[in-house]
Amino acid sequence: MRSTIPDFPLTTQHILWRATTLFGKKEIVTRREKGVRRYTYADFGVRVARLANALRRLGVESGDRVGTFAFNNDRHLELYFAVSSMGAVLHTLNVRLFPKHLEYIINDAEDKVIFFDPPLLPVLGALAGKMPTVKHFVAMADGPVPSGPLEPLASYEDVLAAEPTTFAWPALHESDAAAMCYTSGTTGQPKGVVYSHRSTFLHAMGEVIKGGIGPEEDDVILPVVPMFHAMGWGLPYSATLQGATQVLPDRYLDPASLVDLINTERVTFTAGVPTVWLALLQYLDKTGVTMPSLRAIVCGGAAVPEALMRGMERHGLKMIHAWGMTETSPLGTVSSPKSYLRTGPEDELRLRLRQGIPAPTVEMRLVELGTDRLLPWDGKSVGELEVRGPWIAGAYYKDADPERFTKDGWLRTGDVCNIDPEGYVQIVDRTKDLVKSGGEWISSVEVESAIMGHPKVLEAAVIGVSHPKWQERPVAYVVPKPEFKGNVSQEEILGFLAPKMAKWWLPDEVRFIDEMPKTSVGKFDKKVLRAQARALETPSE
Amino acid sequence: MRSTIPDFPLTTQHILWRATTLFGKKEIVTRREKGVRRYTYADFGVRVARLANALRRLGVESGDRVGTFAFNNDRHLELYFAVSSMGAVLHTLNVRLFPKHLEYIINDAEDKVIFFDPPLLPVLGALAGKMPTVKHFVAMADGPVPSGPLEPLASYEDVLAAEPTTFAWPALHESDAAAMCYTSGTTGQPKGVVYSHRSTFLHAMGEVIKGGIGPEEDDVILPVVPMFHAMGWGLPYSATLQGATQVLPDRYLDPASLVDLINTERVTFTAGVPTVWLALLQYLDKTGVTMPSLRAIVCGGAAVPEALMRGMERHGLKMIHAWGMTETSPLGTVSSPKSYLRTGPEDELRLRLRQGIPAPTVEMRLVELGTDRLLPWDGKSVGELEVRGPWIAGAYYKDADPERFTKDGWLRTGDVCNIDPEGYVQIVDRTKDLVKSGGEWISSVEVESAIMGHPKVLEAAVIGVSHPKWQERPVAYVVPKPEFKGNVSQEEILGFLAPKMAKWWLPDEVRFIDEMPKTSVGKFDKKVLRAQARALETPSE
Repeated sequence: MRSTIPDFPLTTQHILWRATTLFGKKEIVTRREKGVRRYTYADFGVRVARLANALRRLGVESGDRVGTFAFNNDRHLELYFAVSSMGAVLHTLNVRLFPKHLEYIINDAEDKVIFFDPPLLPVLGALAGKMPTVKHFVAMADGPVPSGPLEPLASYEDVLAAEPTTFAWPALHESDAAAMCYTSGTTGQPKGVVYSHRSTFLHAMGEVIKGGIGPEEDDVILPVVPMFHAMGWGLPYSATLQGATQVLPDRYLDPASLVDLINTERVTFTAGVPTVWLALLQYLDKTGVTMPSLRAIVCGGAAVPEALMRGMERHGLKMIHAWGMTETSPLGTVSSPKSYLRTGPEDELRLRLRQGIPAPTVEMRLVELGTDRLLPWDGKSVGELEVRGPWIAGAYYKDADPERFTKDGWLRTGDVCNIDPEGYVQIVDRTKDLVKSGGEWISSVEVESAIMGHPKVLEAAVIGVSHPKWQERPVAYVVPKPEFKGNVSQEEILGFLAPKMAKWWLPDEVRFIDEMPKTSVGKFDKKVLRAQARALETPSE
Repeated sequence: MRSTIPDFPLTTQHILWRATTLFGKKEIVTRREKGVRRYTYADFGVRVARLANALRRLGVESGDRVGTFAFNNDRHLELYFAVSSMGAVLHTLNVRLFPKHLEYIINDAEDKVIFFDPPLLPVLGALAGKMPTVKHFVAMADGPVPSGPLEPLASYEDVLAAEPTTFAWPALHESDAAAMCYTSGTTGQPKGVVYSHRSTFLHAMGEVIKGGIGPEEDDVILPVVPMFHAMGWGLPYSATLQGATQVLPDRYLDPASLVDLINTERVTFTAGVPTVWLALLQYLDKTGVTMPSLRAIVCGGAAVPEALMRGMERHGLKMIHAWGMTETSPLGTVSSPKSYLRTGPEDELRLRLRQGIPAPTVEMRLVELGTDRLLPWDGKSVGELEVRGPWIAGAYYKDADPERFTKDGWLRTGDVCNIDPEGYVQIVDRTKDLVKSGGEWISSVEVESAIMGHPKVLEAAVIGVSHPKWQERPVAYVVPKPEFKGNVSQEEILGFLAPKMAKWWLPDEVRFIDEMPKTSVGKFDKKVLRAQARALETPSE
């Protein structure tokens, strides 16, 4: 039977309409080298319209890809809304990618224009002549256009200046592409995920649901998570949908700058990966400064170590643990104890250290590794997490990848987890990071989280190294806190771990390093550690 | 450009999955003649599956209409989810309709099965033999099947008992019909609105957004608004999506019963039309009882009188004003003062007496009466409110009604309003209820709201009566509070109004009545008052 409700399309145009029409007086604040740039959503709307006109003048047509190579700032947010709302596709380029990956994804996506932040000119400029599809480069500069090898090159403000302040937004289909983002490519080439207007819109709604990770209107949100990392976790869209005040830190992400901005702008809510918060916690511990306006820190991208969550609680800061990936837009699960599970701080901490229950619209199941058998949600059975829903990818760009996307619509996440009877997921590892010792699995995530509970440790990563008898054995790489450098031993670490886990889970060796290698999205780069480990293995061993 | 996110359908099946899988321990509580019936979402899920099997056994096929003639109770909620999730269409019948309207809509919708609450048997039984499409009647009885003229007649519990506890839910398209509801038909025949799975799902998401009217997981919600009135304002869906505890009052809607249920079950949140809360306020004023668990009363369906909102605040109860109609699923606007408009209790009360700003996904505009000219949002210009969005109807069932639904996708609401510069709507009247005096408009809603501020007045309605010189003049119909019956005069009322409005807005006459005629959804029935007024007009006048 036909419904009498027509299919009004879900697009970024509505988010733009809502923010500029209903929340025109609310502000978007961006950190500059000195001070901040501050303007209203009404001003923002005018600039977005100018930008849409400019894009059309630059030859951008429906479906064309527009690349951005930029930090979290006002102009980047303008691009988020102008590009998709005028019918083109926003392609956020990760500024920390290796040059060869960057070159690959620009050419794979066939970007027609690239907008970049001037401090990143050396990185992008190194690829000059290798980006044949790019017809224009635009520097998102306050001042004059920087000189360099990119051509033709224009200034963002020059490009906008001449344009009209309104734009006739075209009719869009909600299944049209709105944005794309590549996975960080820890194995093989990066792979593109192309988000639709529909998936983007639904994801924004899902984030701002009561109990979700997103802001409400009266929040002041500071996203530390980069806007090039899984669409800034969708927060640019959900914050704009709600008319929340947005505080954008640009490239000033050191703890002192963040604390200063949070306190000056009375930020209520922030979001980022654990490495950012580990550094911030250290800073808070050392300086004793407080952030009274801040009510929540959303943390995802990697498991939140217990020591980090407890450390933040000492400072009165609540961490909200979430899980997701580029392929899931990225919101998959959020950990918030259900009403009847609020049975005391320790119980709740146990739950909040899990990755949580699925966001609305997301369905999940647990599948035995190496088979298709469904596993029970008993908190013990360990298998691969599979998810599906209206913002979960069903393919990669130009790559159906049937290994990752099942025929019946499930995404194999590559994350190994258990699910407790209440539906709370606990990720124990990536399938590729599990350490297989004597036919049994060791969770590298659990061991490294335990090591990071040691008072002398800043960061720790555990990998499997090959072993003649046990197939693999765990080895830990540990970065001591600066003040304990050279003053912490393998014995101390192993002695600290011993009461916390089975003996055969204890690493065979603890290797102290000065700096943890990190991926372009700030995760510990185990690929680099594995290469280092292999280099240590001599034929005589 | 194609996105790589497939269009995973938005259906009631996901809501059912979410509630039964993730919130299986939460409860649904229904008032019975004695005590309550209490069970979990897990139990609910099993019964919904049994019911879906039973529907199939009764011959219900994809797209068939299944009527319900019932109060707010557990079985009605089971029907909400079983009928649409198995592919059929839930048709909620208003139990207060006139028999001729009831007969009309059952036959217009071609209901195949009708489920009814036994106390309503006399009403439905009176139509026996006049419902040729109905193949089965099912009594939602605790005990034996009541005897009466409806055939074939079965008992709900008998029908469920034999069925399996699981059901293979079919694949659905999100644009398939999920439910239908008829407008109350104050003019002409009732008209059907057919909701899709998509519109139903999006509406549920929109209700539970931070800042929206819907519950969160830890809420205990008691919907007074009937489940046959614009799908119970969507609360059966949004409460289930969130896994909130639901407390269903069945037919026990008198103030004493409501207060008892609210206090016994520690209800946090309730929703209904102003007439319910006027009666409740009187009861609270008289008895002095308190409801400490209650945090919010959502009120819609008609403008909230100022005296009601202030009265509830005296009892520490916050009213949330919303606006909508059957054609808008029904959520249109919600009044919650924006962060920077929280400038004191009186300012906020002024805003909260307005109907509010559009819910996410809803767009609106203000159109001059009788023309197509768009009017500014200046808080003064008065015109018809038009809305559009993914849960706004674009036609009636079997009736495109181009007068009501514009070619470019806007719904002409028939509500006359102004919109202030912040986007807050204030409904001043229905187009058909405006009083036209000497070429100028008088808002019947404003005058009656002012009268209801008088301490001796319970209810008031204002209509236009024809006048030889001024075309129309306002006349007020007033129900005094019982203790002031016979002890309030026209002079008192007019003297009370005089300082509050322009002199020419004052009613020419105040007519005291014992009871206010009401429509089937509890609104003041001005059609009846107009007929009474016409009867008073003699040819000699």
